[in-house]
Amino acid sequence: MSAEVICIGTELLLGDILNTNCQYLARELAKLGIPHYYQAVVGDNVTRIHQAIDTAVKRSSILIFTGGLGPTPDDLTTETIASFFKTSLVEDPAITEDISRKFASVGRVMTPSNRKQAYLPQGAKSLPNPTGTAPGIIWQPKDDLTLMTFPGVPSEMHRMWQETAVPFLKSQGWGKETIYSQMMRFRGIGESALAEKVAHLFDSNNPTVAPYAGKGEVRLRIAAKAASKAQAAEVIEPVVREIKNIAGLDYFGSDQDTLASVVGKLLQHGRQTLSVAESCTGGGLGAMLTEIPGSSGYFLGGVIAYANQVKHSLLQVSDRDLEKYGAVSGIVAEQMALGIKQRLQTDWGIGITGIAGPSGDTATKPVGLVYIGIATPENQTMAREYRFGQQRGRELIRYLSSCSALDLLRRSLIERQQPKD
Amino acid sequence: MSAEVICIGTELLLGDILNTNCQYLARELAKLGIPHYYQAVVGDNVTRIHQAIDTAVKRSSILIFTGGLGPTPDDLTTETIASFFKTSLVEDPAITEDISRKFASVGRVMTPSNRKQAYLPQGAKSLPNPTGTAPGIIWQPKDDLTLMTFPGVPSEMHRMWQETAVPFLKSQGWGKETIYSQMMRFRGIGESALAEKVAHLFDSNNPTVAPYAGKGEVRLRIAAKAASKAQAAEVIEPVVREIKNIAGLDYFGSDQDTLASVVGKLLQHGRQTLSVAESCTGGGLGAMLTEIPGSSGYFLGGVIAYANQVKHSLLQVSDRDLEKYGAVSGIVAEQMALGIKQRLQTDWGIGITGIAGPSGDTATKPVGLVYIGIATPENQTMAREYRFGQQRGRELIRYLSSCSALDLLRRSLIERQQPKD
Repeated sequence: MSAEVICIGTELLLGDILNTNCQYLARELAKLGIPHYYQAVVGDNVTRIHQAIDTAVKRSSILIFTGGLGPTPDDLTTETIASFFKTSLVEDPAITEDISRKFASVGRVMTPSNRKQAYLPQGAKSLPNPTGTAPGIIWQPKDDLTLMTFPGVPSEMHRMWQETAVPFLKSQGWGKETIYSQMMRFRGIGESALAEKVAHLFDSNNPTVAPYAGKGEVRLRIAAKAASKAQAAEVIEPVVREIKNIAGLDYFGSDQDTLASVVGKLLQHGRQTLSVAESCTGGGLGAMLTEIPGSSGYFLGGVIAYANQVKHSLLQVSDRDLEKYGAVSGIVAEQMALGIKQRLQTDWGIGITGIAGPSGDTATKPVGLVYIGIATPENQTMAREYRFGQQRGRELIRYLSSCSALDLLRRSLIERQQPKD
Repeated sequence: MSAEVICIGTELLLGDILNTNCQYLARELAKLGIPHYYQAVVGDNVTRIHQAIDTAVKRSSILIFTGGLGPTPDDLTTETIASFFKTSLVEDPAITEDISRKFASVGRVMTPSNRKQAYLPQGAKSLPNPTGTAPGIIWQPKDDLTLMTFPGVPSEMHRMWQETAVPFLKSQGWGKETIYSQMMRFRGIGESALAEKVAHLFDSNNPTVAPYAGKGEVRLRIAAKAASKAQAAEVIEPVVREIKNIAGLDYFGSDQDTLASVVGKLLQHGRQTLSVAESCTGGGLGAMLTEIPGSSGYFLGGVIAYANQVKHSLLQVSDRDLEKYGAVSGIVAEQMALGIKQRLQTDWGIGITGIAGPSGDTATKPVGLVYIGIATPENQTMAREYRFGQQRGRELIRYLSSCSALDLLRRSLIERQQPKD
């Protein structure tokens, strides 16, 4: 028994889209311990989709399709699968009703072309799509062969996979051996430096330890294979503990944890509030903080002080210091942090000012130079200088600035919450 | 004649790596006008690589392999290709010398395992790798079949493709025709509704017109094949013009244009400035606006008014109205827009308030309900209500809120800039 992923879409063959679905499904199949030896990509073309199915059914027993479920004429996946197995399509009135209800809920009327999304091969079950109009199918057209279809839109596919496909696969007795892994996340240490510190763990077979470079963080994946998740977790536990000891404060969380969620938990724990004053990040830090549901419990808001006059008028940054030290300076970052903290009457304040580029640099201040200021509950301020480097580019410099601000606050919060000796 | 991409690597099938090589090669083949109908991914396994080659040689005449050229025992690509065609491997002394020189240049000694990288199938030419140790091959083991191999490391592969593969393909008479495309972007119309309006264009062969669903937008790709980019652009032009006429204001830009860049250009054109007041987006709209280099020319900043007291204290939103209509209301969105506009003295102001979820909804106000207010240079205000639907999820609701705000401003700016009859 093995699974094969077949991604359908001419846009993939033209390079218009990066195929992230293959990686997602590959990871998910690995987690379930379902062998997966082939992936195929084919365009929206009946003959070629038939050929891909013909090749796949000879070597794989679970075929997972993505793409081609949309309402337009070039979306052919469902009808082409049906015709390969010489099966006719039947309308499922419950799906038609569901699609028309989804249109109504956003004040629109279902178009005739959307109706085709309600047609399934005879004998197939619908695979519900809670976030979009196109449902998929689960179909076993013959013994030892299971087909599943998903839309190409990653967010829709992920939810359908987790909510319906995984429970279905498990109910079929697949995915009995579990690969359970923990992705440990680090900030403040480079990939090779961390790898050297934990090098003695890389030869381990169960659990395995593997390093990954991430955006604004370094990750270690600790993975174990066992009969159950609980058993695998037991195998992982001592290694995770050892790595936490080695990494100290550079380890910030695992799996779904983000710097913003970790900072949020620390603030909640201490019943403290936060506000932000952002220049070069333009709102990105606030957006990162408010990604977390419930962030209104500790995050009150902030000021996007993109122009200097806003730094002065709303944050009380000294005009003299703006003139003397420049807007991109540690002293301005500190005044921004204190200014927003006092204006919104929060416990903590963060100020960010920097040069995201591509222009705006000077002889002494290169692109990528960023200052982050923190104001504490006692109205003390401190600032740190970061040099992210011009080659990183505007988007990454802004992203790393927000991450660094959260990390700086995280370390301050942990240090204060730890019992003093 | 068509090309097929075969990516080799067990790490791809475990989901450890995102396969960007497929997209790169797809784009490059499209640029050269070489048809490309299939992509395959297979692990580091002789039998399965043989099977992938067996399938590919029956349908494609140019096979492009990536991955599996490294020095370790699991790197099998070259020897497996040779054994498929029953050809022996021969050492190329020039490659051995080149590899050993590369090691010497970084003060290291070539390991015996690297020597295997100098063995090519008899009759194959080496495809030089200027930035790494592993060269690829160009091999025509029989009539009408060309194989090329590349390492999996994207940067090495890209350079080898550009410096050797492209000139080679052109020397063979391939890549004479160019495919040139324009991606047109739309907001304010659904994929199926737009598709129905331009349905008569979907049957066209040159240029082709194909719809894509994007995040917060709908796209149409208009692609033409011709001897040169200029000729292809000519083929595209009348169709693009027709679609613009059909779509009206729902078309907002093409290719690299974003709602934020288009709004930026309109503001710059009218020498006007903007500020924003954000509640549920928490800074996301400001971040979107400041993604654009040079946005400091028209975007002065804003207030993240996550808590109600901030809406009142910094934006002068009436406490009575907050009480009477609730923070999520059209009247509050309008007051936020006017409040920030007046506080930062900009020409335009935007206010966003809504319920991003997953909680915070009430009997009359569901998750996904968002109000966007606009304040004009004459201090007139208007608000629009959006119902994005609970099932969209927090992240997408926030994203769509920012997109809708930019789109609302875009339409206001265009209407004012168009000459009145």
